[in-house]
Amino acid sequence: MKIFKYPDKNLWPEILKRPSKDFSELESIVQEVFEQIKNEGDKALLNFTKKFDGVNLQEIEVSKEEIENAERLVSEQLKAAIQLAKNNIRKFHSSQAIKEEEIETIEGVRCWRKAVPIDKVGLYIPGGTAPLFSTVLMLGIPAKIAGCKEIILCTPPNVNGEIHPAILYTASLIGINKIYKLGGTQAIGAMHLGTECVPKVYKIFGPGNQYVTAAKQVANKFGTAIDMPAGPSEVLIVADQTANPAYVAADLLSQAEHGADSQVLLITYHEKLIEEVEKELSKQLEVLPRRDIANEALENSRTILVKDQEEALEIINEYAPEHLIVSNEDENFFVEHVKNAGSVFLGNYTPESAGDYASGTNHTLPTNGFAKAYSGVSLDSFLKKITFQRISEQGISKLGPAIEVMAEAEELMAHKNAVSIRLKDLNF
Amino acid sequence: MKIFKYPDKNLWPEILKRPSKDFSELESIVQEVFEQIKNEGDKALLNFTKKFDGVNLQEIEVSKEEIENAERLVSEQLKAAIQLAKNNIRKFHSSQAIKEEEIETIEGVRCWRKAVPIDKVGLYIPGGTAPLFSTVLMLGIPAKIAGCKEIILCTPPNVNGEIHPAILYTASLIGINKIYKLGGTQAIGAMHLGTECVPKVYKIFGPGNQYVTAAKQVANKFGTAIDMPAGPSEVLIVADQTANPAYVAADLLSQAEHGADSQVLLITYHEKLIEEVEKELSKQLEVLPRRDIANEALENSRTILVKDQEEALEIINEYAPEHLIVSNEDENFFVEHVKNAGSVFLGNYTPESAGDYASGTNHTLPTNGFAKAYSGVSLDSFLKKITFQRISEQGISKLGPAIEVMAEAEELMAHKNAVSIRLKDLNF
Repeated sequence: MKIFKYPDKNLWPEILKRPSKDFSELESIVQEVFEQIKNEGDKALLNFTKKFDGVNLQEIEVSKEEIENAERLVSEQLKAAIQLAKNNIRKFHSSQAIKEEEIETIEGVRCWRKAVPIDKVGLYIPGGTAPLFSTVLMLGIPAKIAGCKEIILCTPPNVNGEIHPAILYTASLIGINKIYKLGGTQAIGAMHLGTECVPKVYKIFGPGNQYVTAAKQVANKFGTAIDMPAGPSEVLIVADQTANPAYVAADLLSQAEHGADSQVLLITYHEKLIEEVEKELSKQLEVLPRRDIANEALENSRTILVKDQEEALEIINEYAPEHLIVSNEDENFFVEHVKNAGSVFLGNYTPESAGDYASGTNHTLPTNGFAKAYSGVSLDSFLKKITFQRISEQGISKLGPAIEVMAEAEELMAHKNAVSIRLKDLNF
Repeated sequence: MKIFKYPDKNLWPEILKRPSKDFSELESIVQEVFEQIKNEGDKALLNFTKKFDGVNLQEIEVSKEEIENAERLVSEQLKAAIQLAKNNIRKFHSSQAIKEEEIETIEGVRCWRKAVPIDKVGLYIPGGTAPLFSTVLMLGIPAKIAGCKEIILCTPPNVNGEIHPAILYTASLIGINKIYKLGGTQAIGAMHLGTECVPKVYKIFGPGNQYVTAAKQVANKFGTAIDMPAGPSEVLIVADQTANPAYVAADLLSQAEHGADSQVLLITYHEKLIEEVEKELSKQLEVLPRRDIANEALENSRTILVKDQEEALEIINEYAPEHLIVSNEDENFFVEHVKNAGSVFLGNYTPESAGDYASGTNHTLPTNGFAKAYSGVSLDSFLKKITFQRISEQGISKLGPAIEVMAEAEELMAHKNAVSIRLKDLNF
């Protein structure tokens, strides 16, 4: 990790810079894939799967038998862990369902909002060596609580045309049974456009590589909503003398192992901690299977020594980390004043892994500074709110004249007339 | 209006088709403007304002004196109307602030969310002949309630370099004093990139023409959040024998006068209504100042006769109108079952104009079918929610083993280790 001691504030932007990526060059590739899917439907999907995943599929949709088989292939221990995680995620996300009151803004004018599920949603689960069944929980559970009617899931098959049993088991456990063997651009394109086999959805969720990210951007530009813009994962740890250096190092590494482009930051005002954490990092790195990846990520990462917690706070709000871990004597200072962060972990026994898997919070969070304007995925992400209003004769009598004046000032006389014609009947 | 009587369901997609527009050809123009703003800052803004708005500005920011003068130029009657609207909008949007509970998912694992304002937001108010001060209320009031620290407003100057006093007065009334004389692409570019004079914001709100829409899309692609994708305004009215044909016609026209590309739809199962509404349309059109625009919009619009309210509901949910007016004996049928709509107006005395100006609901709503996945602007649009968690020693002891099992199954051993290292210290 690069160490900066008491850097001048005007250096912060440079120090806090993320490795930026521009996906616009991928747009034309994505658009070609989308064009073929539009023209050829499932046939195009099968061709792309052969080309990119190296497998000649007979069927795109996962069969009932495959799903039933999966249950037998997952260990009881893992099943129990998934069940516990499921319960916690369900409990926390269920608590986000809040019924709002009807409001009478003036007598006879009643307004309210109603949360309604997004009818058709698509979840993307990346492939690769490891099966990210935890993301199935994080996206599928709030979709189910929201009441989305059609929930589909796309995930790339391996070279044998199979999906990892842990993904199939988890999806089935939470009631998602429309699963398609599709990865990358062709998966996003299928959900965005719809084919014979894959239904078109209104909103697409889930992480992925640069092709998935670019494809989601293009889908969004042409009318399909997406969960949020994506970037590499990141954590910022703010720690003082009460922090445990071994825990700090472990938490930094748990983020660094995600990918060579992951960013981890340590901010402290306790100089001694820096050396202690560095020592722990070396020690713990040695035994990590993904140490090469983690090491590369650490090389792009920063330790910043600041003068006090106020300055640490400023850096946090400027950087807007996806994950923020607070190991600080005065936790509440950060709870109260943090403005920009995706998810915050408080205290020495709250590792980020807890939120990644099982504590109940969502792990789909805004990266790349997007926490300045975006929230992580929550129950809200699967709902939209419709406003309703009902105005009585008395209500329009009171409200009407103001509307007439305003509409006339905006030179929208038909808007005015829609009120005048009613007031006239009511003898106003 | 084109009339379709009992059309076959497989014709619906064609009948409900919107005049679609692709702004991607404008992207390169937008990117050139953005590039110049990036390189030359305010100088570029002044040049573009000269080129596009035909005025040689000395200052981009509106002065204190201009704001103070505006107050004298707005009539007392309009001020009173704006004040009434402001109170109602404030009342309804304030009610959307809801504090969520802290949840203990399992013993010792506490999770909660906190709503935090987006620090820096930019509001765009289009120019043109009429001053859209109502949009200043609709965007500015929730931004203020949310507590956004920096709220800026851009709106194009006229050829004399002035902003309409009603806009300046309204902005100042709700406490927005950073107002810039900037229109179109250069306004969006300035807020997206920041210049010497205009601060960079995290989220851009507001309607506009095709250049504004394209510029917001590009800004969004490069990291600035936007309120929602835009399209022409639209209303769908579902009406039966209890509807008043004159009111229905007035409401259709109030939408049609927005622009030649506006869409208005009338759905009914009471055949007689069609002729009555057509008669009223002709009559009311005659006296409208914007009748040419309204007439053109009506030509693209549709009346659909269906067999019953169930079929009407299906069409509504398929079309996903921005505004839905329900003049139906059984209002609650639609209240209960409408899934896709931006804002719903119930009963014969609830014209859409009420929501456009003064009833309290927001008028920035999803068009173009986006109501299938998007909500209108609300207090939520100016907030993001940060999740927090605090886990006790007991909590991690209970939760930890499940995290270990899951992390190992996802082959993320550093994630597992972040838990193991703590459990070890706690003698687990």
